[in-house]
Amino acid sequence: MNTADMQRRITDAVDDAFDRQMETTKQFSAIPSTRGAEGPCQDMMHDLLRVRGYEVDDWHINTDDLKDLRGYGPIEHDFSHARTVVGTYRPTRDAGRSLILQGHCDVVPAGPLDMWDTPPFTPTIKDGWLYGRGAGDMKSGTIAALYALDALHAAGLKPTARIHFQSVIEEESTGVGALSTIQRGYRADCCFIPEPTDAKLVRSQVGVIWFRLKVRGKPVHVFEAGAGANAIKAATYLVEALEELEEEWNRRAASDRHFKSVKHPINLNPGIIKGGDWASSVPAWCDVDCRIAVLPGWSIAEHQAEIVACVDAAAKKHPFLAQNPPTVEWSGFLSEGYELTGAEESEAVLRKAHEAVYGNPLKELAFTALTDTRFYGLNSNIPSLCFGAKAEAMHGFNERVEVESLRKTTRAIALFVADWCGVEPI
Amino acid sequence: MNTADMQRRITDAVDDAFDRQMETTKQFSAIPSTRGAEGPCQDMMHDLLRVRGYEVDDWHINTDDLKDLRGYGPIEHDFSHARTVVGTYRPTRDAGRSLILQGHCDVVPAGPLDMWDTPPFTPTIKDGWLYGRGAGDMKSGTIAALYALDALHAAGLKPTARIHFQSVIEEESTGVGALSTIQRGYRADCCFIPEPTDAKLVRSQVGVIWFRLKVRGKPVHVFEAGAGANAIKAATYLVEALEELEEEWNRRAASDRHFKSVKHPINLNPGIIKGGDWASSVPAWCDVDCRIAVLPGWSIAEHQAEIVACVDAAAKKHPFLAQNPPTVEWSGFLSEGYELTGAEESEAVLRKAHEAVYGNPLKELAFTALTDTRFYGLNSNIPSLCFGAKAEAMHGFNERVEVESLRKTTRAIALFVADWCGVEPI
Repeated sequence: MNTADMQRRITDAVDDAFDRQMETTKQFSAIPSTRGAEGPCQDMMHDLLRVRGYEVDDWHINTDDLKDLRGYGPIEHDFSHARTVVGTYRPTRDAGRSLILQGHCDVVPAGPLDMWDTPPFTPTIKDGWLYGRGAGDMKSGTIAALYALDALHAAGLKPTARIHFQSVIEEESTGVGALSTIQRGYRADCCFIPEPTDAKLVRSQVGVIWFRLKVRGKPVHVFEAGAGANAIKAATYLVEALEELEEEWNRRAASDRHFKSVKHPINLNPGIIKGGDWASSVPAWCDVDCRIAVLPGWSIAEHQAEIVACVDAAAKKHPFLAQNPPTVEWSGFLSEGYELTGAEESEAVLRKAHEAVYGNPLKELAFTALTDTRFYGLNSNIPSLCFGAKAEAMHGFNERVEVESLRKTTRAIALFVADWCGVEPI
Repeated sequence: MNTADMQRRITDAVDDAFDRQMETTKQFSAIPSTRGAEGPCQDMMHDLLRVRGYEVDDWHINTDDLKDLRGYGPIEHDFSHARTVVGTYRPTRDAGRSLILQGHCDVVPAGPLDMWDTPPFTPTIKDGWLYGRGAGDMKSGTIAALYALDALHAAGLKPTARIHFQSVIEEESTGVGALSTIQRGYRADCCFIPEPTDAKLVRSQVGVIWFRLKVRGKPVHVFEAGAGANAIKAATYLVEALEELEEEWNRRAASDRHFKSVKHPINLNPGIIKGGDWASSVPAWCDVDCRIAVLPGWSIAEHQAEIVACVDAAAKKHPFLAQNPPTVEWSGFLSEGYELTGAEESEAVLRKAHEAVYGNPLKELAFTALTDTRFYGLNSNIPSLCFGAKAEAMHGFNERVEVESLRKTTRAIALFVADWCGVEPI
């Protein structure tokens, strides 16, 4: 069987199963697997892997095992149900290069339901797009990888290298799920994460720091408002000070070889605010959960220190905060940026697969969001590719993924695996 | 019995019972009667009135009966348990001037407990002050009025006019409790509310409008922050616009005959803020609950319209808000200011009582908070006096009332009742 024949058999197999793939994608996306509620999603993935004959490793994550590892971010909620699921394929004859295929099943909150055109957890196909929370980021990618492996089997082929299919949690908040696979000992010659990248290869990605500003004021009756400090207004003042730091960091980004061409790659986001108990009481407290990006090579510890220094300096200039210093809590991501290097071999394989499916050269991307690739790359020196379908409004209302782009992604993953791991007839 | 003898017997009776009064005050203040949880407080007051022989009227409030009355403010929470308790004393011989004695038993939230030196609902006497949420505002005042009536009885006297002792809720949010007593038909020749005023008579008080700014943004992944609108930041921008309106209203206040001497009588308070669901999602929504004051004679409807116009005008200048107009909800108080007029007769009686107890002339106050007096004065033309003890940190941490000021307040109320209603030997 020549290469072109084999490619055709594989991509035909993808097409043959594509309706079933979309059905599975919808079922997977229908599970509201927000933080802390990923259990049923992991159960579904456990079953999908088990019935396909993978050796399933399904374990509860113990943060004590992880907290001293590179890239760990603190967990604040009940983590007793947190699990990782890995399905392993072991070849009869091990001749190729081993692979980790990874996807995260956690999704960000849907936000106010009335702002969705269709319910976020009722995945709906409309005008060639699949709508739903997580449909893009990234349940469709995980299922695409699963069906890519199925397609090889349907084409009468089996890989000749070990494959770990990993379903993780916490990608949206700490990355502790991916970190747990490293700690558990999973390794391979390459990692591939099908996040939605619009068929581009992520060359470099930002890191992220999450932190919480905590302001504690002196509440008084509003009739003596001058005597109290309004914690909400003090918190707003601190966010403005941090926006100056954001601009300073963007100026530094101009010297990054990949991000210099990206407009404003460092975004500060005050994402959650809660403050005060009563409209007629000057608010005594205000918490603001923020996210800010860093670039590859930037030290997390040094940038944490800059955040604290910025808050402290601003507080010193504020009559109330000077007397009642705000605090900074680390509330999730403490994640470095990651630049894909030393991956020439796997990149070449992806480039070929891409060319075969899309008929044009693979483009690259400097990504202003993070992905789990950093753990494989930085902690275990496993080159980690991130490549996937076309999605829009990730984290927004009416999140969606383009159905045809999913078909192509699935073909490309299948061809990549066949080439990277090698295949032989069943 | 001459006046001085009678006064002495009454004030002695207050002193004799003062330890018991403080005990009752502590018990009453120990009940965490925040909004919606006033039931047990009303039960206690029901019992206190019943054992003393008052005719108790204890009813559930039906907002349908009230919503078209002057000064009604909208209720957003479950109101099915909301009650008013009125104990009525009817004289054997009706010769004097009837009286409403009123206090509210609702208290504002305690806020973060760790900012209190003693637990807010464990009333504690320390260095001559009683500490606790509601100890000042205004449970100690209500119990003072109850014990003032007890003192007349202990002095062998009974009033010769009808007295309605009213325990109400919602003073801190809408005033609907006081309004319910008007709707129920309770009337008298004078109303007296022992809020903590540091032994001053409230001559004029502000009104209050509560409103909620609702901003709905377009949430997107923070990696494309420029494409989304941060609802938290948009809400902050609207608060800043409203601060300009606050200053405009303060300029107008310079022509008010009572408030012209008060520095910054109109306070805008952004008191509660809630926005966003996820640190790494550009927040899609933000609600800010605000309070602003108005002066006596200012139309509520006109000032509501000014608030809406201010928000609309600011939104039009804001790239995102212009496309996604914020809304203003009326979330509680829609309350006019109140100036005490036409009360010369009752004022003269209070002046005499004050002089007898304090040995100096009664001072007056332009009050930058509101009280329930407005309903009696504006809706039913009942002159309404507000006078009481010395309290600090109302709505704040370590709220407290000075114990000796309570004793004097109780004496003054007892002398006022004896003079206003008239008394005769039991």
